[in-house]
Amino acid sequence: MRATPADRSDHPLAHRYRTVRSLTDSLAAPLSDADATVQSMDDASPAKWHLAHTTWFFETFVLRDHVPGYTLHDDRFPFLFNSYYEAEGRRHARSRRGMITRPSLDEVRGYRAAVDAALLAALPTLSEAAQELVALGCNHEEQHQELLLTDILHHFSENPLEPAMFAPEPKRPVAVPPPTGWIEHPGGIVQVGHGGQGFAFDCEGPRHDVLLHAHAIADRTVTNGEWAAFIADGGYRDARLWLADGWAWVQANGIDAPLYWERQGEVWTRFGLDGRRAIDPAAPVTHVSFFEADAYATWAGARLPTEFEWEAAAAAHDPAGGNQLDHAHAVEPRPSSGGPAFFGDVWQWTGSAYRPYPGFRTVEGAVGEYNGKFMSGQFVLRGSSCATPRGHARACYRNFFYPHQRWQFTGVRLAKDL
Amino acid sequence: MRATPADRSDHPLAHRYRTVRSLTDSLAAPLSDADATVQSMDDASPAKWHLAHTTWFFETFVLRDHVPGYTLHDDRFPFLFNSYYEAEGRRHARSRRGMITRPSLDEVRGYRAAVDAALLAALPTLSEAAQELVALGCNHEEQHQELLLTDILHHFSENPLEPAMFAPEPKRPVAVPPPTGWIEHPGGIVQVGHGGQGFAFDCEGPRHDVLLHAHAIADRTVTNGEWAAFIADGGYRDARLWLADGWAWVQANGIDAPLYWERQGEVWTRFGLDGRRAIDPAAPVTHVSFFEADAYATWAGARLPTEFEWEAAAAAHDPAGGNQLDHAHAVEPRPSSGGPAFFGDVWQWTGSAYRPYPGFRTVEGAVGEYNGKFMSGQFVLRGSSCATPRGHARACYRNFFYPHQRWQFTGVRLAKDL
Amino acid sequence: MRATPADRSDHPLAHRYRTVRSLTDSLAAPLSDADATVQSMDDASPAKWHLAHTTWFFETFVLRDHVPGYTLHDDRFPFLFNSYYEAEGRRHARSRRGMITRPSLDEVRGYRAAVDAALLAALPTLSEAAQELVALGCNHEEQHQELLLTDILHHFSENPLEPAMFAPEPKRPVAVPPPTGWIEHPGGIVQVGHGGQGFAFDCEGPRHDVLLHAHAIADRTVTNGEWAAFIADGGYRDARLWLADGWAWVQANGIDAPLYWERQGEVWTRFGLDGRRAIDPAAPVTHVSFFEADAYATWAGARLPTEFEWEAAAAAHDPAGGNQLDHAHAVEPRPSSGGPAFFGDVWQWTGSAYRPYPGFRTVEGAVGEYNGKFMSGQFVLRGSSCATPRGHARACYRNFFYPHQRWQFTGVRLAKDL
Amino acid sequence: MRATPADRSDHPLAHRYRTVRSLTDSLAAPLSDADATVQSMDDASPAKWHLAHTTWFFETFVLRDHVPGYTLHDDRFPFLFNSYYEAEGRRHARSRRGMITRPSLDEVRGYRAAVDAALLAALPTLSEAAQELVALGCNHEEQHQELLLTDILHHFSENPLEPAMFAPEPKRPVAVPPPTGWIEHPGGIVQVGHGGQGFAFDCEGPRHDVLLHAHAIADRTVTNGEWAAFIADGGYRDARLWLADGWAWVQANGIDAPLYWERQGEVWTRFGLDGRRAIDPAAPVTHVSFFEADAYATWAGARLPTEFEWEAAAAAHDPAGGNQLDHAHAVEPRPSSGGPAFFGDVWQWTGSAYRPYPGFRTVEGAVGEYNGKFMSGQFVLRGSSCATPRGHARACYRNFFYPHQRWQFTGVRLAKDL
Repeated sequence: MRATPADRSDHPLAHRYRTVRSLTDSLAAPLSDADATVQSMDDASPAKWHLAHTTWFFETFVLRDHVPGYTLHDDRFPFLFNSYYEAEGRRHARSRRGMITRPSLDEVRGYRAAVDAALLAALPTLSEAAQELVALGCNHEEQHQELLLTDILHHFSENPLEPAMFAPEPKRPVAVPPPTGWIEHPGGIVQVGHGGQGFAFDCEGPRHDVLLHAHAIADRTVTNGEWAAFIADGGYRDARLWLADGWAWVQANGIDAPLYWERQGEVWTRFGLDGRRAIDPAAPVTHVSFFEADAYATWAGARLPTEFEWEAAAAAHDPAGGNQLDHAHAVEPRPSSGGPAFFGDVWQWTGSAYRPYPGFRTVEGAVGEYNGKFMSGQFVLRGSSCATPRGHARACYRNFFYPHQRWQFTGVRLAKDL
Repeated sequence: MRATPADRSDHPLAHRYRTVRSLTDSLAAPLSDADATVQSMDDASPAKWHLAHTTWFFETFVLRDHVPGYTLHDDRFPFLFNSYYEAEGRRHARSRRGMITRPSLDEVRGYRAAVDAALLAALPTLSEAAQELVALGCNHEEQHQELLLTDILHHFSENPLEPAMFAPEPKRPVAVPPPTGWIEHPGGIVQVGHGGQGFAFDCEGPRHDVLLHAHAIADRTVTNGEWAAFIADGGYRDARLWLADGWAWVQANGIDAPLYWERQGEVWTRFGLDGRRAIDPAAPVTHVSFFEADAYATWAGARLPTEFEWEAAAAAHDPAGGNQLDHAHAVEPRPSSGGPAFFGDVWQWTGSAYRPYPGFRTVEGAVGEYNGKFMSGQFVLRGSSCATPRGHARACYRNFFYPHQRWQFTGVRLAKDL
Repeated sequence: MRATPADRSDHPLAHRYRTVRSLTDSLAAPLSDADATVQSMDDASPAKWHLAHTTWFFETFVLRDHVPGYTLHDDRFPFLFNSYYEAEGRRHARSRRGMITRPSLDEVRGYRAAVDAALLAALPTLSEAAQELVALGCNHEEQHQELLLTDILHHFSENPLEPAMFAPEPKRPVAVPPPTGWIEHPGGIVQVGHGGQGFAFDCEGPRHDVLLHAHAIADRTVTNGEWAAFIADGGYRDARLWLADGWAWVQANGIDAPLYWERQGEVWTRFGLDGRRAIDPAAPVTHVSFFEADAYATWAGARLPTEFEWEAAAAAHDPAGGNQLDHAHAVEPRPSSGGPAFFGDVWQWTGSAYRPYPGFRTVEGAVGEYNGKFMSGQFVLRGSSCATPRGHARACYRNFFYPHQRWQFTGVRLAKDL
Repeated sequence: MRATPADRSDHPLAHRYRTVRSLTDSLAAPLSDADATVQSMDDASPAKWHLAHTTWFFETFVLRDHVPGYTLHDDRFPFLFNSYYEAEGRRHARSRRGMITRPSLDEVRGYRAAVDAALLAALPTLSEAAQELVALGCNHEEQHQELLLTDILHHFSENPLEPAMFAPEPKRPVAVPPPTGWIEHPGGIVQVGHGGQGFAFDCEGPRHDVLLHAHAIADRTVTNGEWAAFIADGGYRDARLWLADGWAWVQANGIDAPLYWERQGEVWTRFGLDGRRAIDPAAPVTHVSFFEADAYATWAGARLPTEFEWEAAAAAHDPAGGNQLDHAHAVEPRPSSGGPAFFGDVWQWTGSAYRPYPGFRTVEGAVGEYNGKFMSGQFVLRGSSCATPRGHARACYRNFFYPHQRWQFTGVRLAKDL
């Protein structure tokens, strides 16, 4: 990734580092050793693994590589907590991360504390390059904060007792979503991608011109109520609405509703970090796959926006606004409080495959594996979700998942040609 | 698909129809009943199925739908020979097409003859819409001519005796490929997509502007000799060259060379329609996947072109030129005879995911399933191959396959940023 | 296998050899090249493969090993037509036998003719050991005659057209099966196993004493009508009737009736070598697995007999009697014509696992692999079926299949403790 | 199961119950909440599940069914902790037992304590039938004590850190195993099966006569040193030594040594409850499958004993002797201290398929599912192991596993025909 030079006056990185690390700790605080250890599927990782892997990232790329004389906290940990960096050598199989009952959660917390102490002590003497890696590590850890929440949600959903991780939020007054408004764009050349101010991941650049065609994009995302209407209209049973791969996925897996939805009598419920509750018809629908998003758009006579249509529309909005993650609690998408919202609540599937921008080049070394090697088979999501740490999102941010995946807080914004 | 109105003067469609149908028959002529019946993998279909399915297409969408009083040749055939049209009802599972020993090859030939007679008789009275479907059916059958050859090649490769379908071509003089030249493009807005003259499939339009960035594209494709150097340099063993999905595919399947290649002592051989022979170092490499193409490009310090870079460069070239299919014989890529060649020999993987163009809309009814529903997970290939019927290709033609597939005549053309 | 010395007077082996070979040819006569080539599942082999493999057996173990100067008909055939003899070297994967469209059916017939000529010419000069191998080969080929019929039946059942291989038999008068009678045995030591006269496979000996306990065995097999009552009573939906592995198999495969049964309105039909027809309630049920047989017995308040209880009861009956295979036609189980029948119609699952007898030892060399290595995980069936060549069966004959397999003509005889 | 009437004088069942329950607790004592929760493969269960399931057994079949007014400790637990009793209703999928992080280990300990208190309070008033169920429950829990150890061993082996559960045992002096002696038996009728005194599981009876044939059985089991010689002689690479299913298993899984063995330089090591250490050549080999045991016996020119040969020879030996489980520690097979040993160290694979005895009948109700429904596809093991609670074993005891399973303490005793 390319990160812009960090401002070193008054060591703002120290504050930034502490803030990020502390939020991670508080997210994991309600978890028992066992909760934090178990892995519920290959795609998801145990919370303890997230706690340790983010720490390994700082230890490896900052302390080991840039602090003379640093000794590894435990030389067996790199094998356990490297995620996918081939250049860093062999590593534990992703699907077996749930076997690691030792080190314990407390030992991993000790690992975090030791690396925190070493890193904060070293910070004033770090080179600019090393400071950029600290900034990268903070952004990396923010990504894992979101994954920690979505992974533990999936794990708890596999327990027949359906435990709640957090207390429910106070009751909200019943809301009625406003009708969808359409933001029109006449087409023409616009600039997209990261422009140089502030941090960004490598895949967000280079900034470059793209040519848009005339279109309109919805000013809000699709709601649970609208999705229930799609279900009621037979949306999951009509092959003509679906991409061929999507239809095969629906049939092979018996898909008939978003992930975590369950019908109880006349009511659709969903499982969340506060346990199982009735859906809120006015809240954005979430935990839908690209396949479902695309089928819904077809059913609605619309399409998904391209990632650049989305970026052009979102550029005028505050990426730090909306329902995003500030502290540990039962995050979930909430009904709109009015006005177009591009950030918060749910990531929004776009119709764009995740591919490199013109002039994209991976950096040398292990961190060059950060994004580039995932550029096949996945689709771009834009925006941010209720589980994205506030301040992490940007209009040019590119999230990406496979079209069948839906355990993230993923939702749908429509677009159409003009 | 959208097809332009056919010119009905002197029924050129009759000539076109007969030419296409006759080439299909001659391609299948060397096959025994058993050869034509067996299915070697889910991706490939038996030759007999191709013979029947292309016939079913004409019978269903032209004769049944547009010729009053037409009676089906055999009312059990639609279940057997519908490929993937959900709107046409239930159909035989794709992976079980090899079970259909009855009807026999001779009976399927009878089916072809009967439908040919009925269609040619009806041709003068067909509406313009029906004539467009005949034109579509001819192009559809040309696609299946190429598949028939690649599918039978795969099937014969699974026979330990490695039978040859055709006699070998006469020996060619040893050629030395010219060094790769680079065609530069300064960037800017260009028009791409089908523009309205002649037939095209629906996914090739609408014609629209795209913005290119400055780049260069190779004037020839990668050769077997260059590929052998990639292998010798450890290309298949270096994770850093590969997309993550590609590396997983390499490891899960033990991939270490193009499909059909086999090392015999010091020599690389390949299996082809004329049996197993030594590779020709000067000929274009073929039977490589997108994953391999991408890894090769990375190894070579280049990248794959986008489909629009390719189209801009190819627009000046004759799509009916080069080594394409004119008659039944042991087709294979051949060394270049000089000059930039964009058509013939091998399809060329692009870096573009197969997605709809701005304004793309599927047509109503079953034929609307022709292309649109496959627009996820696949990559675009451009050009044409030694197995593409001459006249079928266009600069705006979009072929597409999954990134791991390689039983087609697929090859590599490099590009780079300027 | 151990075979008793063949009587060489007047070369009865020549007659025996010709009779066996000729029946095989006539069984395959209705098949096209394609019919004979396709493989419908891993367990089943193409008819052409049966024709060639049985020939390979004679060529390898008799001609190659015992006839000086014999040259292989085609030195590529051993790789193709060895079934499972590890000592004979590498061989084509069992699951890919359906890829062998070349050699053609006619070429395989030529292979048969050439080996027949060579073997009959060599017969008078063969050593006793070699003659025993000819006798073994004849019995081996008889086993493949039965497999040829059951394998082609499975293959044709996978064709949605459900072709008939043979014309239907003449209509039989409606029969009512007699009530089940019970043959009682007081228990005690009996002798079982092959005793030395005539041919037997190695696994049928040594002859030895076994101790039976007091029991009764049914004098007829279970009928289609009785099976329909089991279905109607919810037999396939009551876990308590099933072995745990059987219940898992039922649920994973959605089993709710014997193989080839299909409900059409109010009527149960079955697919057979004469196509699809209504079941005959009076005929023995067939195409049931051990799991089904065991569940039925539990439902009926009985159990399956042990293989030795069966053998003790069958010893008094003519193994060449009943409905067995005499010539090529649409064989199927038929209603009993009266009197206890232990042979013909259907193989009968026993409750005995297929394990070696006391003192069993495999012979040296490749033919030692004939039976011994299959002695885990399978159950013994006794008797013979409508597809067993008459003369092949013996009271001590041990057939064996895995408990889930049911494409053979397998049925059920009950027993109970006294 | 059939259990003999319990002697109620002075409530010996209370002492028995407390002893069993207390050993279980001590076995689990070294485990963290996470250790006790994770599931490493479908065959194995988490320790916490064993703690809870054994408790559920008492709660369901004794307290719920026989104590008026008893209220379930937690009415959600039966769904979680029923193992395989179809009659007890739906239950959590076996392969997902590792998802249950809640209830916590402490909560499960609370469940144990509550049921213990209720059961001990109720004991004096329980009917004889209920007391038999208590005795059954104690024997059931002893089985799970052994599973708890073998399952946690497997789980820890999946952690790259290979943690030790217990401290290593004190060093033993180097031992040299005595040569194998052979115990001869002339054959004849012997009685086998449970005879009526003391507890036994249902599958161990009825006691009945069997006819043995003359044979000899080894007076000790095969050692690690002998197994290393089998490996060195190419035992895992010679197809002729293996059953066909065994050879397929070897090849599909790359098997080349017992489970948990790993070659480090010149030395074979094994993983055990005390971590990874060098093998002791004099100790009995363990963690071998039936397939391996059978191949070894073939290599050694011998065979496996039948279960009745084993029982006849073992009848004279003390089932409470030898290396069995007395308390929580790093159990493992130990070198023989002299004299024939039939009990302790390792379970011994027999050549007998696990099938019912003459006259076997399952009891009514859920506990009737205890053994009978597993009587297909598995082989009988006899004796007991270092992980079997002392007092649990009997000469007539029938343990059973599938032929490929080897995570239990399974070993090999040879036999041969005379």
